[in-house]
Amino acid sequence: MINMVSQKNGFIPKTVDFETRVHSSFKHQAVMNLIGAELVKVLPGEVEIQVNFRKDLTQQHGFIHAGIIATIADSACGYAAFSLMPADSSVLTIEFKLNLLAPAEGDKFVAKGKVLKSGRTITVCEGEVFAQRADETKLVAIMTASMMTIMNRPGVSESSISE
Amino acid sequence: MINMVSQKNGFIPKTVDFETRVHSSFKHQAVMNLIGAELVKVLPGEVEIQVNFRKDLTQQHGFIHAGIIATIADSACGYAAFSLMPADSSVLTIEFKLNLLAPAEGDKFVAKGKVLKSGRTITVCEGEVFAQRADETKLVAIMTASMMTIMNRPGVSESSISE
Amino acid sequence: MINMVSQKNGFIPKTVDFETRVHSSFKHQAVMNLIGAELVKVLPGEVEIQVNFRKDLTQQHGFIHAGIIATIADSACGYAAFSLMPADSSVLTIEFKLNLLAPAEGDKFVAKGKVLKSGRTITVCEGEVFAQRADETKLVAIMTASMMTIMNRPGVSESSISE
Amino acid sequence: MINMVSQKNGFIPKTVDFETRVHSSFKHQAVMNLIGAELVKVLPGEVEIQVNFRKDLTQQHGFIHAGIIATIADSACGYAAFSLMPADSSVLTIEFKLNLLAPAEGDKFVAKGKVLKSGRTITVCEGEVFAQRADETKLVAIMTASMMTIMNRPGVSESSISE
Repeated sequence: MINMVSQKNGFIPKTVDFETRVHSSFKHQAVMNLIGAELVKVLPGEVEIQVNFRKDLTQQHGFIHAGIIATIADSACGYAAFSLMPADSSVLTIEFKLNLLAPAEGDKFVAKGKVLKSGRTITVCEGEVFAQRADETKLVAIMTASMMTIMNRPGVSESSISE
Repeated sequence: MINMVSQKNGFIPKTVDFETRVHSSFKHQAVMNLIGAELVKVLPGEVEIQVNFRKDLTQQHGFIHAGIIATIADSACGYAAFSLMPADSSVLTIEFKLNLLAPAEGDKFVAKGKVLKSGRTITVCEGEVFAQRADETKLVAIMTASMMTIMNRPGVSESSISE
Repeated sequence: MINMVSQKNGFIPKTVDFETRVHSSFKHQAVMNLIGAELVKVLPGEVEIQVNFRKDLTQQHGFIHAGIIATIADSACGYAAFSLMPADSSVLTIEFKLNLLAPAEGDKFVAKGKVLKSGRTITVCEGEVFAQRADETKLVAIMTASMMTIMNRPGVSESSISE
Repeated sequence: MINMVSQKNGFIPKTVDFETRVHSSFKHQAVMNLIGAELVKVLPGEVEIQVNFRKDLTQQHGFIHAGIIATIADSACGYAAFSLMPADSSVLTIEFKLNLLAPAEGDKFVAKGKVLKSGRTITVCEGEVFAQRADETKLVAIMTASMMTIMNRPGVSESSISE
């Protein structure tokens, strides 16, 4: 199954259960529950997170706040990176940049994170955030991010927080 | 009073009521209420926003999610920029970059946004986010951001959303 | 001819002579001559700049210096943006970020700049830099950049420096 | 001597000869010779590089090209990071972002790179570039950068290229 999936984008995951590991870690991101975000796609090196419009996520003009856009884009990129990392690893964000192309108005917002380069220590990702309304889909933001593979470090391993 | 304040950092606000305008706009950022953020300082070109640790703001390792750090840093930078903008203007974020220096663990988190260069169209800001616990204060993230002055544009003016 | 070209990527240039304007401005970037860079492609919203490996462009490990990679990527993005701008305008870089994916080793380096969003004031671009050697082409860096349209401003207009 | 120097900014170098190592590596950055850049200050975690105005470093408006500004700022940040790294290490740039605050016009340009956070693998730096003319000094650009410590890797160690 891994081989089938990886053929889609050329990435080969290092673990058989990458999908389970991403879902399990996502469930522990309490902030995703607060903002109503859902994990809607997990492929090797490619993850999508979706959030519906809610008034309590907006900034002063009624658009979704750039920080919330950053929240789903950062996690989409981080989990895209994590999907390719070895067992016993965890992922930390080193940095990201977000460019806002259009006001984040719409019914729902989908952040697509993709791995561009998967290195031993550093993984570089790009994220796109789309606003959807009726038939219309609009690119509202792009992210580039550097993610770091953390091996066996107590306190920041994904498994340490899984029951 | 404006002159007194501006002597602190050399910026001279274009409006007498810059402080009121920032507070009024902040109140309309619904997401700030969701995450429990407060506006704790407004000077010309300098704004601070604070959020307390809450479990529902965390990522998988129990640290505050980078996207929430970005949310308060972006607004601190945006309002620092807005504090120097003319009447009838509003502010939009063009882009920001966040570098994470340390895990965001602590009791409360303070984002300090400062204007580096205030131009007619573009304002460049830098943000610092500190984690505080007991007597300890630690720099956990830095931001650089480009903000844009929007003049008299319906739908994105601050005044259009004020009662 | 403009219509033909624009069908390739959906952008419609505002001037008939966009290609000439880009070439003319590029010729005035003296630094391009210093580093031996050439303008190899100009489409609406899409520009490529190429530089050959030269020992005097390297950093301490013998790779092309990241700043030289930034130089050709910034100009490729800037001219991609400029190709869609109106007559009597000029272009200035607001900011760019460069992520380095692999050491810049190879025989020649091609920076491809593309417009993602062309606004009245701000144009957002992405750049990719490829290293080429024999049959191999490798993505070594990515850029995201914000470009600004400057209208009729003395001292920074492209035409003021054209003979 | 190390102790004296480190008291200035709180950083303690891991090597006695950090200054020599930085100077030695800088000499091997051939591009610095091409653009006429000089290393003018080396402290633990703090490095300055200077370049004089030259017509052949300019872009189309006669200002120094943003890529050249990036070149000296990247090296100033990289060497600031390298000054705190252990023996047998070398430094690579992961990413940087440059915000341009004002046109780079002047007689000489000084890039100041400073370490904000020195980690085992990642060092985060900020850079400032000042334009100087007569008595006037103007901040024209700021950089934030992530640098990586590379240990004992053949082909990218600083010592492998030193005579």
